[in-house]
Parts: sequence; C-alpha cells; structure tokens
Amino acid sequence: MLPVVVVHGGAGHIPKDRAELSCAGVREAARGGYAVFKTGGSAMDAVVEAVTIMENNPAYNAGRGSVLNVKGGVEMDALVMDGRTLASGAVSAVRRVANPIQLARMVMEKTSHLCLTAEGASQFARAMGVPEVEEESLITDYSRMRWKKNLHPDANPVESQMGKMGTVGAVAVDAEGNVACATSTGGMINKMEGRVGDTPCVGCGGYADNQTGAVSPTGHGEAIMKVTLSRLILFHMEQGKSPEEASDMALTYMKERVSGLGGVVVVDPKGTWAARFSSLQMSWAAAQQGQLHYGLYHGEDFTEPI
Amino acid sequence: MLPVVVVHGGAGHIPKDRAELSCAGVREAARGGYAVFKTGGSAMDAVVEAVTIMENNPAYNAGRGSVLNVKGGVEMDALVMDGRTLASGAVSAVRRVANPIQLARMVMEKTSHLCLTAEGASQFARAMGVPEVEEESLITDYSRMRWKKNLHPDANPVESQMGKMGTVGAVAVDAEGNVACATSTGGMINKMEGRVGDTPCVGCGGYADNQTGAVSPTGHGEAIMKVTLSRLILFHMEQGKSPEEASDMALTYMKERVSGLGGVVVVDPKGTWAARFSSLQMSWAAAQQGQLHYGLYHGEDFTEPI
Repeated sequence: MLPVVVVHGGAGHIPKDRAELSCAGVREAARGGYAVFKTGGSAMDAVVEAVTIMENNPAYNAGRGSVLNVKGGVEMDALVMDGRTLASGAVSAVRRVANPIQLARMVMEKTSHLCLTAEGASQFARAMGVPEVEEESLITDYSRMRWKKNLHPDANPVESQMGKMGTVGAVAVDAEGNVACATSTGGMINKMEGRVGDTPCVGCGGYADNQTGAVSPTGHGEAIMKVTLSRLILFHMEQGKSPEEASDMALTYMKERVSGLGGVVVVDPKGTWAARFSSLQMSWAAAQQGQLHYGLYHGEDFTEPI
Repeated sequence: MLPVVVVHGGAGHIPKDRAELSCAGVREAARGGYAVFKTGGSAMDAVVEAVTIMENNPAYNAGRGSVLNVKGGVEMDALVMDGRTLASGAVSAVRRVANPIQLARMVMEKTSHLCLTAEGASQFARAMGVPEVEEESLITDYSRMRWKKNLHPDANPVESQMGKMGTVGAVAVDAEGNVACATSTGGMINKMEGRVGDTPCVGCGGYADNQTGAVSPTGHGEAIMKVTLSRLILFHMEQGKSPEEASDMALTYMKERVSGLGGVVVVDPKGTWAARFSSLQMSWAAAQQGQLHYGLYHGEDFTEPI
C-alpha cells in the first residue's frame, strides 16, 4: 500500500473551459510527487514537489495563477507539516515568491518559528536567497479578468468565489510510514489586503501526525477555520473512523454548522486514502502501487498506469 | 453557576518583582469582565473587556508592555471567538494599535474575513477609525531592557523566553449559556519580524463552541500550534472529560510529544471552569457567584469577595 501521494487542485465549481486543465494538472502533480519516492524521497519531499508543480501551473489559485486581492495584488498563504515530529512551517500574505510552499518548508527547517507573515516572510525569503519575482509573473490574464469583473458594483462575489476556489494541496505516506501534508493558495478573489485564510493555520489548512494520518483541505477558508477541518477529520480517525468516513462526517458538519462547502485529501499511515468533497467538484489524483486514480465529480474514480 | 469569567496573564516563570503586578492585574481584569454582565453584556463583551484591561496594563506581554521583535518593534496578535456561531476574528503582526483584541472583534463583525495581517490589518484599523498610536507608547522600559539583553551574543534565548511569556486571555459564559474566548499577545521576545504565533490561529490560540466550552491558552506558541491545544482540550471535553481533566490531558500531551509548556483557562457552558498549567507559574483569576478566585503557583486557589 505504501508509498502513496494524493493531491487536490481545489474544490468548488470549476468552469468547463478550466476543468480539463485542472484535471490534467493534478495527474501531473501526483505523478511528480510519486516519482520523488523512487529516488528515496520522504513524504515531506513528495508533498512539496507535488504542490510546487501545481504552484507553477497557472490553472490553479496558488503561485502563478493566484487570484488577486481587491487592489489587484497577489498575496499567498502556504503550510507544510511533518507527521513524524508535528513540525510545521507556514507563510501568510507573502508576495513576489514563485513557490510559497518551499518558503513554508524553509520556515520549518531554518527558523525556531512556525509562521512568518507579509513583509517579514519576504525578508526571510531574501535572507535564504530565494529569488524575488515580479508580481506580474504570478498574474494570468484569467486572474486579471476575474478581478476586474468582481470590481463591478453588480458583481456577485459569492458566485464568483465558487468559480475559482482552486487552492492546491497534497498528502503523502512514504515507505517508512511517515505522513506529511502541504497546502498552498492565493486565497479568495478580491479579498481585502492582508486577509489570511485557513491555509497557513495549523489544524485548519492542514495537519499531519504519524499516529493518525494527514489532511489537506480546500474550499471556503473561513468555514474551514471555524471548524478546524483538518484536525477534526483526524480526531474522527482517532476514534476509529476510516479516512473516507471521517472526511464525510467533518464535511457534513461544516455544511450544517457554518454553511461551508469544501473538500479534502486524506491518508492514514497504512496508505488508506480518501478524496472527498461537499462542493460540486474537486479535481484530485492519487498515486499508489503503480496506478494513478483521479476524478472531478462525485463518484468518479478513473485509473491509468503511472 | 452563571455567569462566569476566567482570565490568565501568561504562563511561564514570572520574575519575583513582576509577580505581584501580574496577580493584581488578573484580579482587576476578572472583576472588569464580570462587571460587564451586570449591565447586560454578553460573554463576548466580557472577554473583550477583560483582555482590554490587561492590554492596557504594562505588566503583560500584550498591547502596552508587549515584548519587542528582533528589530525593537512591536507586532501583536489577537483572536476572539463566539461560541454561538463559531464566528471568529483575528489580527496578526499588527502595529500601532492600543487594543488588538478590539480590532480582532471588528474583523469578525465588520468583514467577511476571519484574519487580517500586518499592513492590511493597519489599513482596516484606519478605515474603522481606530486611532493609530505611537509605537513608543506600547513600549515599556522593562521590554526595552529585556530586548537589549537578548541581543547580547551570550544571551540564553530559551531562559529569557521563560521569563516573560505573558500572553493574556479570557473565557466566559454569560447568563444565556453563550461562551466566548479572547487572547492577545506581543509574541516571543526578540522574534523575527513577521513571526506569527499560536494566538491568531483558530483552534490553537483559542476556541469557543456553545456545544462544548471555550479555551484561551498561553505558553510556547509553536508547541501550542503543533498540538492545536485549544481544540484538543474541547475534543477531550466532547468525550466526557471535565474542563480540568481535559486541560491536564492536553497539557501533558503537549509536554510529552513536543516538549512544550503552557497553561489554559477553560469553561464549559454550565459554568464549570478550570485554570491549569504545566509551567512553573500562571497568573489567573476567575469571577463567579460574587466570588473572586485567583492563584499563581500550582495548587493555589485564593478567594475574596468581588
């Protein structure tokens, strides 16, 4: 059953013209994460590689392709967590870096802190020699079009949000049974400057514990935070629920208690995985035992050889 | 048993010359929070009032009296959560506001977001008409002395942190059985610019749910985040543990799993409360049924009429 990597490319309502790109991208990311195991990489290496691939893919709301804040700027959040030690690293509202997920990992490995925000995160990136990129290089025509559309007084912000919630994330278990998670996002379309969502918040935007499993969520960030979605799923698993049962219980609770929709990818240390969502769609892919599984709508589980 | 408010003024090792100030301050804050109930205030009103009193008191590491970051600046984190709806508001790395806890409440009540960080939080404060204060007005001689001492190459940062971990927090239940929590901090002494600790992270730096109770923690922020301490305590209470049992279980787990020390104040919706800590000391006070309880060392529970 080991190793395994499961990725998502965001939950919500994905416009038709974007769905194919999103589905192709998660398959590529799962393959990329899985390939890391062949060269002796850890679960942490695999999730960071998978998320890096999606950050570099403009089809997702993370890294290049991030949605714009109300002022037309890009501010990104990212989190990693290592199930061996519960070590975690995060950045929030960071600008002008190509791969926030790699910077989050550096916060975990190179500082005594867990989260750096805004200009402090940028300073740390410079100190680590991470290249500063032009903000323009992170912005796609699609992001700018959507930003402008949402500035119109008659725009429906809720509907617009549903159109592109494409936070990306990954969970993995390596051959030694170590679990890890990684999540990265540009946040909500036309968010206020400095808005921080669930992603960099441990227990909300991800959690990984070798004793239970790992989770990476996507969806309405504020709702995910209110129910600490990732930690909630692992609590259900601690009570004996499977990754699938635990995910469905927590997603149902989030819908009923705070009217929030979303989705998750989950693994346990034995390699049992789940990709579940309460939204209309979630692009996801899982790589295990030479097989790639993937889907977009409820009930889908397509397979192909890796 | 209702209403009740319980506050803490930080866990750690409080220097002798500061202990009296810290103990007097928590009694004043608990009285202030409790008084809110007499004029019809809610649990949320009570915790914000109690924390505001401690932010204004230079004896604590929150608001005026906050520790300084490595560059000698003040960056503050704060969180509120309302157990009725799970609504929450937070600010991280915010500068030049006297009462971050009030700004956190405004984020909850006046925006569609849950957390604003750094310059974005300042912009929001200006838009809300919150006065911008001089950074100097938040800095005490004591904070500056400790900052300078820690810049010395032979400083022991771990020992220094223990000396002043004085995050402040409060939990309350009002006569209707609604619970709320509030937590505010200047963070860690000589932290990197932009460091965000557990405080503004829902489930870590606080949690409130009418179905279970409310928690406000203090201690080593990175450890609190790794175990999502506040949510963990409420999960134990959901499994039938008392506030005291649940707190001790979670604090023991934090010590054993990630070598972290800290403390918490906890209430359940019936008004059962606990003030527990794994550190040497935690200044705390609780107001209930016309009595004030308070303590600093393990085993202490002094009482006086309110």
